[in-house]
Amino acid sequence: MSAPSFQTMWAELARVGKDPGTGGYRRYAWTGADLDCRAWFRDQAEARGLRHETDRNGNLWAWLGDPEAGDAVVTGSHLDSVPDGGAFDGPLGVVSAFAALDELRARGARPVKPLAITAFGDEEGARFGVACVGSRLSAGQLTREQAHALRAADGTSLPQAMEAAGQDPDAIGADPERLGRIGALVELHVEQGRALDLTGDPVGLASAIWPHGRWRFDFRGEGNHAGTTRLADRRDPTLPYAETVLAARREAQLAGALATFGKVLVQPNGVNAIPSLVSAWLDSRAADPASLDTVVAAVEAAAREAATRSGVELAVVRESFTPSVEFGHALRDELARILEARSATPLPVIDSGAGHDAGILSASVPTAMLFVRNPTGVSHAPAETAAEDDCVAGVRALADVLEGLACA
Amino acid sequence: MSAPSFQTMWAELARVGKDPGTGGYRRYAWTGADLDCRAWFRDQAEARGLRHETDRNGNLWAWLGDPEAGDAVVTGSHLDSVPDGGAFDGPLGVVSAFAALDELRARGARPVKPLAITAFGDEEGARFGVACVGSRLSAGQLTREQAHALRAADGTSLPQAMEAAGQDPDAIGADPERLGRIGALVELHVEQGRALDLTGDPVGLASAIWPHGRWRFDFRGEGNHAGTTRLADRRDPTLPYAETVLAARREAQLAGALATFGKVLVQPNGVNAIPSLVSAWLDSRAADPASLDTVVAAVEAAAREAATRSGVELAVVRESFTPSVEFGHALRDELARILEARSATPLPVIDSGAGHDAGILSASVPTAMLFVRNPTGVSHAPAETAAEDDCVAGVRALADVLEGLACA
Repeated sequence: MSAPSFQTMWAELARVGKDPGTGGYRRYAWTGADLDCRAWFRDQAEARGLRHETDRNGNLWAWLGDPEAGDAVVTGSHLDSVPDGGAFDGPLGVVSAFAALDELRARGARPVKPLAITAFGDEEGARFGVACVGSRLSAGQLTREQAHALRAADGTSLPQAMEAAGQDPDAIGADPERLGRIGALVELHVEQGRALDLTGDPVGLASAIWPHGRWRFDFRGEGNHAGTTRLADRRDPTLPYAETVLAARREAQLAGALATFGKVLVQPNGVNAIPSLVSAWLDSRAADPASLDTVVAAVEAAAREAATRSGVELAVVRESFTPSVEFGHALRDELARILEARSATPLPVIDSGAGHDAGILSASVPTAMLFVRNPTGVSHAPAETAAEDDCVAGVRALADVLEGLACA
Repeated sequence: MSAPSFQTMWAELARVGKDPGTGGYRRYAWTGADLDCRAWFRDQAEARGLRHETDRNGNLWAWLGDPEAGDAVVTGSHLDSVPDGGAFDGPLGVVSAFAALDELRARGARPVKPLAITAFGDEEGARFGVACVGSRLSAGQLTREQAHALRAADGTSLPQAMEAAGQDPDAIGADPERLGRIGALVELHVEQGRALDLTGDPVGLASAIWPHGRWRFDFRGEGNHAGTTRLADRRDPTLPYAETVLAARREAQLAGALATFGKVLVQPNGVNAIPSLVSAWLDSRAADPASLDTVVAAVEAAAREAATRSGVELAVVRESFTPSVEFGHALRDELARILEARSATPLPVIDSGAGHDAGILSASVPTAMLFVRNPTGVSHAPAETAAEDDCVAGVRALADVLEGLACA
């Protein structure tokens, strides 16, 4: 076989969309870097003699066997990135998919079902603000009208961006026919926490994706001169905001959940001006919906109490919410059986605080996820990494799964 | 006399540089709105038969009598604004200066010294980041080289902006000859706090300007995924930043001082990203340098302690510092004598947390300030105001001062 090795594929892709200043990746949907990633995908498909296509929603597919036959075994992930993201989140799943197919062929395994490798479009939502656009559209969880209304920070609409990239924006929408051909979807992904590092395993299976949401807290006070306004006369929104940041951490700790204020916008944001408005975004996630409700309610109560004490008005808006996803037990049990038969040790089963295309599509087709150990747990940042040995273990596990699910 | 009344002058100026959305003023140095304010100043001078000029540092002067004679009595303030500032900060002193001259003439008072009305350039520093550029340059407190290095957020340099406005940027610099002609400078300004509101007086005299400074706190943590990073593995700079905001308020309260975190910049500022860097600016002021030192040292100590607890690095840089200004007692006592002889009640003497051109120039010439009551204390915001009766009282007091200092 003349197919490029894992290392060669990785090195080629590593050059695309990397910011020389930060060392992070900037591969946003339908930008030049994204189009370069898509060209790389097509090159890999052609190097392996796979038929490739881009579906109506911008997702990439490379087929071995007849798509029309149905009950296909599909694996892949995504190629786009968050701003200054790491090299592994997304690409590891796509590169491992091609490498697993190569290993399957090297083993001489004979597929009896169609196999496909996929790269879903715009998973991170870095440009248009909504995550998993490609899989959401296909699954009917995002309508054409909603997608057409999406805009980037520079004003470019999603349809304009698609059109500029040669993709027909009017063709997007639910794609039950294509999803109906899939018998099983397995997404391999670098772990974004340290669960596998703590258990000492290179590869694990996903049990569930935590429910999560975003809430905007608008603290509205009174803009004034920082050098002349007596403390007693101030209605400074910075104070209840600061108390709320600390409350979020405290409540998350108490509930065994996660809560983060990662984004804040201040008006007018002048050194010598008491702000009139502080808008801060809470990202919170928990293992179950009840714990998440508890955390968010407690943070909001603390914010209201602090705002009242400072004479500040507070408005809280839930901007997005994704319920928990429990991956189907049948497929997960089958993967566990396949993998444990080969390694003779049980695989750890871990949950994920992050959303994934596999989570979106779990409502439409049987899905499962494999995680590869992340020694630092760092994710969505240039330091995100996985050891080469663990990547090799991930490819072997994925090849085992494809062989077990699709081969005679 | 055909000179426009206070009300007419006020109404004309009120239209210049007002943002229709916020209702605040955006009169930044050397922009179109600033040039319109300067044209208004020249119109007022011409309507009163005053010779006018723009000096090398962009300050405006309108002369009654011979500038060369020396021992001039000068009054005025500035016309530029902070972003979305109020109508009174600056313009009240310039409009009142013209109106006070009109009242002097109506009284038939005969000046025996030269009189001048002035509007200093770029007092707020909204565009180039340094306050009181015009008066600092004239007083030699800002060098030509330092001024030439100033840049606006859009990259425009101060020399480029001056040149585009027809002002020679190479002519700027210390102007001892012009300052040497001034015998007394009196700046009338809307109060920016509520001291006069609390004492129930329409007009007060300035005692001193508090020492003040700006400190940048850089909290450097580790960027990571908000949905997957365990609380125990985080180095989240938002937490020590929030504790420092609360510590600043607490320490200012203890010391009877002021401390404000009005500006913050977060990297990468994404909803689902634990920030890697939080840069926050402390503005602090106190009645005396020792109290200011105490507050800033205590805030920094609290920040270091909180940063260490969160595994976050902290760097603190003092970006600017202005020592306290005590206005000369001789001129202040003379103003008190003049004004109390007419009103038969002692004037309140108050200090100011805000900087002023009169404070800058107090190192070069005898200066004093009159404050006009601000019923809400709101400043640097559209709601900044003063009652019409109080503005009239301010004009009368300023006319009294000019008559007492300059007339036979």
